[in-house]
Amino acid sequence: MSKQHALPDQYPYPVARIGIIGGGQLGRMLVKSAKRLGCTCVVLDPTPGSPAGQVSGHQIVADSHDPEALQQLAQQVDVITFDIEDIDAGILEEIAAAGHQILPSASLLGDIQDKLRQKQLLTRLGIPTADFVEVDPSDAEPFARFGYPLVQKARRGGYDGRGVVVMQSAADAAQALPVPSLIERFVPAAKELAVIVVRGQDGEVRSYQPVEMCFRSGENILDMLLAPARISAETAAAARRLAVETVTGLEGVGIFGVELFLTEDAELLVNEVAPRTHNSGHYTIEACITDQFEQHLRAITGLPLGATDQLIPAAMINLLGEPGESGPPVIRGLRAALAIPGVSVHLYGKASTRPFRKMGHVTVLDADIESARRKAEQVRALIQIGSESETG
Amino acid sequence: MSKQHALPDQYPYPVARIGIIGGGQLGRMLVKSAKRLGCTCVVLDPTPGSPAGQVSGHQIVADSHDPEALQQLAQQVDVITFDIEDIDAGILEEIAAAGHQILPSASLLGDIQDKLRQKQLLTRLGIPTADFVEVDPSDAEPFARFGYPLVQKARRGGYDGRGVVVMQSAADAAQALPVPSLIERFVPAAKELAVIVVRGQDGEVRSYQPVEMCFRSGENILDMLLAPARISAETAAAARRLAVETVTGLEGVGIFGVELFLTEDAELLVNEVAPRTHNSGHYTIEACITDQFEQHLRAITGLPLGATDQLIPAAMINLLGEPGESGPPVIRGLRAALAIPGVSVHLYGKASTRPFRKMGHVTVLDADIESARRKAEQVRALIQIGSESETG
Repeated sequence: MSKQHALPDQYPYPVARIGIIGGGQLGRMLVKSAKRLGCTCVVLDPTPGSPAGQVSGHQIVADSHDPEALQQLAQQVDVITFDIEDIDAGILEEIAAAGHQILPSASLLGDIQDKLRQKQLLTRLGIPTADFVEVDPSDAEPFARFGYPLVQKARRGGYDGRGVVVMQSAADAAQALPVPSLIERFVPAAKELAVIVVRGQDGEVRSYQPVEMCFRSGENILDMLLAPARISAETAAAARRLAVETVTGLEGVGIFGVELFLTEDAELLVNEVAPRTHNSGHYTIEACITDQFEQHLRAITGLPLGATDQLIPAAMINLLGEPGESGPPVIRGLRAALAIPGVSVHLYGKASTRPFRKMGHVTVLDADIESARRKAEQVRALIQIGSESETG
Repeated sequence: MSKQHALPDQYPYPVARIGIIGGGQLGRMLVKSAKRLGCTCVVLDPTPGSPAGQVSGHQIVADSHDPEALQQLAQQVDVITFDIEDIDAGILEEIAAAGHQILPSASLLGDIQDKLRQKQLLTRLGIPTADFVEVDPSDAEPFARFGYPLVQKARRGGYDGRGVVVMQSAADAAQALPVPSLIERFVPAAKELAVIVVRGQDGEVRSYQPVEMCFRSGENILDMLLAPARISAETAAAARRLAVETVTGLEGVGIFGVELFLTEDAELLVNEVAPRTHNSGHYTIEACITDQFEQHLRAITGLPLGATDQLIPAAMINLLGEPGESGPPVIRGLRAALAIPGVSVHLYGKASTRPFRKMGHVTVLDADIESARRKAEQVRALIQIGSESETG
């Protein structure tokens, strides 16, 4: 990396050595893009043979809170990034202070990984979000004062709908999460959207078309993603502007997933920001000129950003482990799903399934978003990730 | 693989274990597709840390003619395929006879890797090709009898224009390759085309749009690929029909690159068949619904074939090592090239460059083929793969 500055537009091979904290599916897809662009990767993950480690060829088997392992990673690479948020940001700040490049920055990760600090920061930046207040969950009084319906969010560690509780009335107070939390106004959203934004080291920023996030009714688990979202061109443009304003305000470098509520009153509120490649951006691999993983790499290595144009509508479903089945995975209905034109199946290489674990995803391309959606419904009915024990 | 037959449409993880003979860039891109589809790969290649070995995580370091190593590979995988043609087909036939699956078949590889046998087979199948005759290169007489201009082709081992000599007249006879050869009529081609064809285990066959192969004038080195080719819809349809007829006649399973001459008289002749993923199909990664690597995997694992539709025009150039430079590579002009919208750079991870070595390729997407072509010209002028020694 130092070389590229000394000699303009001339790179050694590898072009850059990337350290990735977290070796899950996001890291796995990042490694593939990195190798294509002439970068090498070292993955830090506690599970030997992690999804990303399987393709990088270099893994430090350690926890993301292990200071020595993080130092070791820093020594081996030119730039550190992450595919998870649950990292000790303090250790990362020390590593950054010692002169190692970490992108997005350790201080921004620290602000974002704590949902309370994230909301406070967004508010300071003038970004519209749902009203919120910090609470001590052992005290029911602030919940009543704030008023129902409300959403309690754990400050730390929530993901994929975990760490979030919707309370309709005081009768739900018993469900309160017993952890440091904030509560926020329940937003009766007409739609939930996500905008993938990339910002370069030079401050250049680009966004992809908004994606529509569909949830199973009554559940916090994402059911399907539709790209582009079924919204007006004006709303799409406004969502992109707000997402770009958010990432610019945060001075983030790399890919960010900005989740938004489109309220019943046609207002846009930022729900949450993820400082990393995002589930809602997986469709970009098949459907866009430059995918989110290559964009992230271009941003963190100081290369020019790529085009975000979408070539064809796409629907995406996650492949979650079947309820009641654990152990070595068995993929049912794969052949039937692949027989549908436009279906791309991504399996993440996890050696073991468990209920609702993200085992893969499927992207469906089609000439219009309704046909893509219908085919994705078919695929969901066809593919199951179960376990061997079920199948004898 | 046995499991999938016993239990219809139910796969363990890995879905299949793929053995790849040859660990170059074709193998590298195949491994990436394989992992996405839930397959694992073992690469056999004499160079430790080969391009494909870097992503597969499992490499047998051995030559493609080593019988013990090939046996060892067969023991570790469900199906063997290859990214090179220079393999001892006799050893592969023995391995196949012992019950191991090899796709495309060892006997077909044997027929194709010998350009004389390939031409004889195509002729038996009624596929139009340039007239040819076997020659002993130590004897000039058959050359004169056949008549000039002619093309001498080595029966074995030629690739990327090596092993081929064009002779305009008897004065060129001194350039004759001193190896077992055939000579064929020089075809004054209006264009050279390639059609990527995939054929499944069940005989289902699909083709991609014809690609136009542009060569530097007077050289046998491919200069640029344009997809789709700039030909009429009728010619494109005829080229696809002929390519499909060829692969069907060969009873091939997997991806085949069928190279064709479009003569000045608008006649189509098959020039050569490659029994593997093909340089002219790299654009399918960015531009098509299902790329040639995933297609090959689907075919050899008995999964349904994918859609071959192209979403956007594409131009492709190979990144060859600069003349006069050898050693650890340096990539010049990378940033400038990536600043052009629609540019995807693929570097193959080769630790050392040498003149004309294939070090990577670039695919350029654009709304029309002329703009894609112009941008690819720009990229070619910008990117150079040189060596460190030049740069101090």
